[in-house]
Amino acid sequence: MNQLYAVDLNCDMGESFGAYSLGHDEAILPFVTSANIACGYHAGDPAVMKRTVRLALRHGVAIGAHPGLPDLVGFGRRDMAISPEEAYDITVYQLGALAAFAHAEGGTVHHVKPHGALYNMAAVNPALAEALAEAVYRVQPTAALYGLAGSALIGAGQKLGLATAQEVFADRTYQADGTLTPRRHPNALLTDPAAAIAQVVRMVREGRVRAQSGEDVTIQAETVCIHGDGAHGLEFAQQIRATLQQEGIMVRVHQPVSA
Amino acid sequence: MNQLYAVDLNCDMGESFGAYSLGHDEAILPFVTSANIACGYHAGDPAVMKRTVRLALRHGVAIGAHPGLPDLVGFGRRDMAISPEEAYDITVYQLGALAAFAHAEGGTVHHVKPHGALYNMAAVNPALAEALAEAVYRVQPTAALYGLAGSALIGAGQKLGLATAQEVFADRTYQADGTLTPRRHPNALLTDPAAAIAQVVRMVREGRVRAQSGEDVTIQAETVCIHGDGAHGLEFAQQIRATLQQEGIMVRVHQPVSA
Amino acid sequence: MNQLYAVDLNCDMGESFGAYSLGHDEAILPFVTSANIACGYHAGDPAVMKRTVRLALRHGVAIGAHPGLPDLVGFGRRDMAISPEEAYDITVYQLGALAAFAHAEGGTVHHVKPHGALYNMAAVNPALAEALAEAVYRVQPTAALYGLAGSALIGAGQKLGLATAQEVFADRTYQADGTLTPRRHPNALLTDPAAAIAQVVRMVREGRVRAQSGEDVTIQAETVCIHGDGAHGLEFAQQIRATLQQEGIMVRVHQPVSA
Amino acid sequence: MNQLYAVDLNCDMGESFGAYSLGHDEAILPFVTSANIACGYHAGDPAVMKRTVRLALRHGVAIGAHPGLPDLVGFGRRDMAISPEEAYDITVYQLGALAAFAHAEGGTVHHVKPHGALYNMAAVNPALAEALAEAVYRVQPTAALYGLAGSALIGAGQKLGLATAQEVFADRTYQADGTLTPRRHPNALLTDPAAAIAQVVRMVREGRVRAQSGEDVTIQAETVCIHGDGAHGLEFAQQIRATLQQEGIMVRVHQPVSA
Repeated sequence: MNQLYAVDLNCDMGESFGAYSLGHDEAILPFVTSANIACGYHAGDPAVMKRTVRLALRHGVAIGAHPGLPDLVGFGRRDMAISPEEAYDITVYQLGALAAFAHAEGGTVHHVKPHGALYNMAAVNPALAEALAEAVYRVQPTAALYGLAGSALIGAGQKLGLATAQEVFADRTYQADGTLTPRRHPNALLTDPAAAIAQVVRMVREGRVRAQSGEDVTIQAETVCIHGDGAHGLEFAQQIRATLQQEGIMVRVHQPVSA
Repeated sequence: MNQLYAVDLNCDMGESFGAYSLGHDEAILPFVTSANIACGYHAGDPAVMKRTVRLALRHGVAIGAHPGLPDLVGFGRRDMAISPEEAYDITVYQLGALAAFAHAEGGTVHHVKPHGALYNMAAVNPALAEALAEAVYRVQPTAALYGLAGSALIGAGQKLGLATAQEVFADRTYQADGTLTPRRHPNALLTDPAAAIAQVVRMVREGRVRAQSGEDVTIQAETVCIHGDGAHGLEFAQQIRATLQQEGIMVRVHQPVSA
Repeated sequence: MNQLYAVDLNCDMGESFGAYSLGHDEAILPFVTSANIACGYHAGDPAVMKRTVRLALRHGVAIGAHPGLPDLVGFGRRDMAISPEEAYDITVYQLGALAAFAHAEGGTVHHVKPHGALYNMAAVNPALAEALAEAVYRVQPTAALYGLAGSALIGAGQKLGLATAQEVFADRTYQADGTLTPRRHPNALLTDPAAAIAQVVRMVREGRVRAQSGEDVTIQAETVCIHGDGAHGLEFAQQIRATLQQEGIMVRVHQPVSA
Repeated sequence: MNQLYAVDLNCDMGESFGAYSLGHDEAILPFVTSANIACGYHAGDPAVMKRTVRLALRHGVAIGAHPGLPDLVGFGRRDMAISPEEAYDITVYQLGALAAFAHAEGGTVHHVKPHGALYNMAAVNPALAEALAEAVYRVQPTAALYGLAGSALIGAGQKLGLATAQEVFADRTYQADGTLTPRRHPNALLTDPAAAIAQVVRMVREGRVRAQSGEDVTIQAETVCIHGDGAHGLEFAQQIRATLQQEGIMVRVHQPVSA
């Protein structure tokens, strides 16, 4: 039997705001299985959230809350020195707002993935990670927590008994300690789509990735981050989905199994 | 038996924001039965919402969402030409955010009362009123809709089968058509506390209020708006509660009975 | 001599915000003479303002402040019940912010044109119009006030001795009283570019426009609003500029001549 | 002659916002010589800015711009990873906005002092410091730059030829390297008013402060930060002003002398 392997493809969505349009949500939805929907802090607004929830439901794509820092002009990409309690508060707020739209449309929040700087800070800061996990646990304990594979966020989610999804990146290279090569490094990005897809296939099938140092590193790939914007985002999404299926890897939404 | 009558006392709360403190929530909570908690648009922030939900639960006061217009600097008091769809969207968003804090603390949202200009517009604009009622209906159909007694908002809630609470004001005078005397009129306010309380007692017991024109007007008083700020807010809350009980009127949270 | 006539072409610019891009400022700048630059309330942010000021200076296009209502998610298009004093305050604030960017780059603010709902409200509400004119007068009395031809805003500017520019629209039809046909009317828009340009040529040369009722109406056309967005905005800007010049109408920035 | 010494007393002001009131500006203005007026990002709004500018002018207190990070809910106290260019942009914007209110009232901006986290980051980060100094230099080169005594911000201002004012704190203790003892340390605060005032007197007269380590450290005290809020802010302002004058130290606004 050739479908021993499975992986989730997730994509950030609902990042438009008011008169401003961003991304190609409708075009990319047929190729992914999980949508991370912005909740109004770093992007998105109530009208966009409603529309995106409806689109996700129509395509049978799992609805995720994508909370970010309160920094619309910086798109949530600038680190802010927030306390764990503040991280908890803004996650409860945003998760609740999105859950209301999901509920109003007959859906439910399947997962939570923090955005941008909040994601990065929670990957390495255990106190922030625990605060985020606690927010999910208290608001919707059935939701899965999506985080960087091997990160503090995944650890915090597991500790609370949340379902978690270890996230990997197709187009980023890895270091010997299993972390992503920082973007400022010349080799941070895998620009060849074929190489990027091959990296994902190997991560899913073998649980390993070749680090920049040349060593093999153990990694658990439960969900892959797909970028919906950019000139080639849609094309890449199509390619990776097709290749994964050819390689006998089932593309399906991450199944929350709490620890 | 002398407790044939009952009424709810509600008060706007959680209106602080960041470094800014407003109101005397802790002091007034012992005297009211329903708290309308700001949801971050016209006032309030996630930390304040969490704190206020906890306070309400500790005092056994019913938690209400108090959604407002997206106008922090104007405290949600300036009319904005929003569409019914926008009214729906911002209500779902804010109600969801507050519901998450309530749920995280083991509570639930008991009612929804729009704030300021949104309240006033929904009182007279049936399309806005229906949009607000629809938002409550889709997100939490068990919540009661609080609105101006006899208003379009109450009508919209009843049409959808929502529980509603007809709200009256102790310190405002009424017109012959049952509406409030606009604030710009010289006799808009009842400044004598005894007269204000007597007006409420009569509204509750007799279902009538003496209009400025001298006529008696029919009015249904299910909940009374108490102001927590101002020099005499606390004192008035104590007085009205004591007087109501002396008059055999039970002060208790509005019991949502859907139509 | 065939250049007895002259007109200014103005365009709203700098409407991007953070990660969000809007409009085609660089492409349209060669065809217009005045840029109305958003100031951060309804659109624009400090980085965008700086960039847009630089672009305008590079193209020799006059820098204008384009203050709007504090409603980013509504793009400043929703009427808000602000007081004249609030209108004054937000205009001083936004004009000052833009003036600083102009000054930092060696330029100066040539004109002020309110945006969207603020523009529309100031066209018909004399108290708001006077507040806006007062703000310009107190902050930069050498700046011209751009407003709807024949509007309360133009009147308020003239009363204070400000230079004013009466604005006309190429693609909108007019009513017998000289006002624009409201957008909800079926004939509100002139969709044929040739007819739109002909309307402008006649307004500039003859000071008249044919109203929907069939009558001729007197109108003063000192500046024409060009839309930089939309599929055909750029093409239309090129056409109208070329045609105006062929018709012997000089296209040049409005010359502030205070009353 | 006994007035060889002089010092400026500055205080943050205009920190109210909309319905929210903060500080006691009117009460403290008679005792200080420089007002640092919030510009709408971390606190303040256009109405508050106008009112505060008017108050400062009425009391003959120098008007300063007090730009902060775009973090209203955090009161500008949370570090944000902004780039130097972003620091430049937000400073130009806020300085321009305040300058417009000053100008509209017949005044002018005398100095610029960044707020909170922006102040702290610019004290130690030369690139941010240079960006802030550049913003002042390009918008209003006659304004003085207020910064922590001995900080990168003062250095950046001097490098551009701006007038600078070295700021000291009455109620904070110092370390052997001349920096403030971080607030988390048990001895960070001087809670005895007499000791705090004596520290300032010595800093002004002798140019030295006793560090926590027991050593004397050289420090230049050109302006002293006074806190207008808190229970004892007003009392302390009165005391320090009286004592300074008794000690023959003239209390007057810092005289901008560009380098």
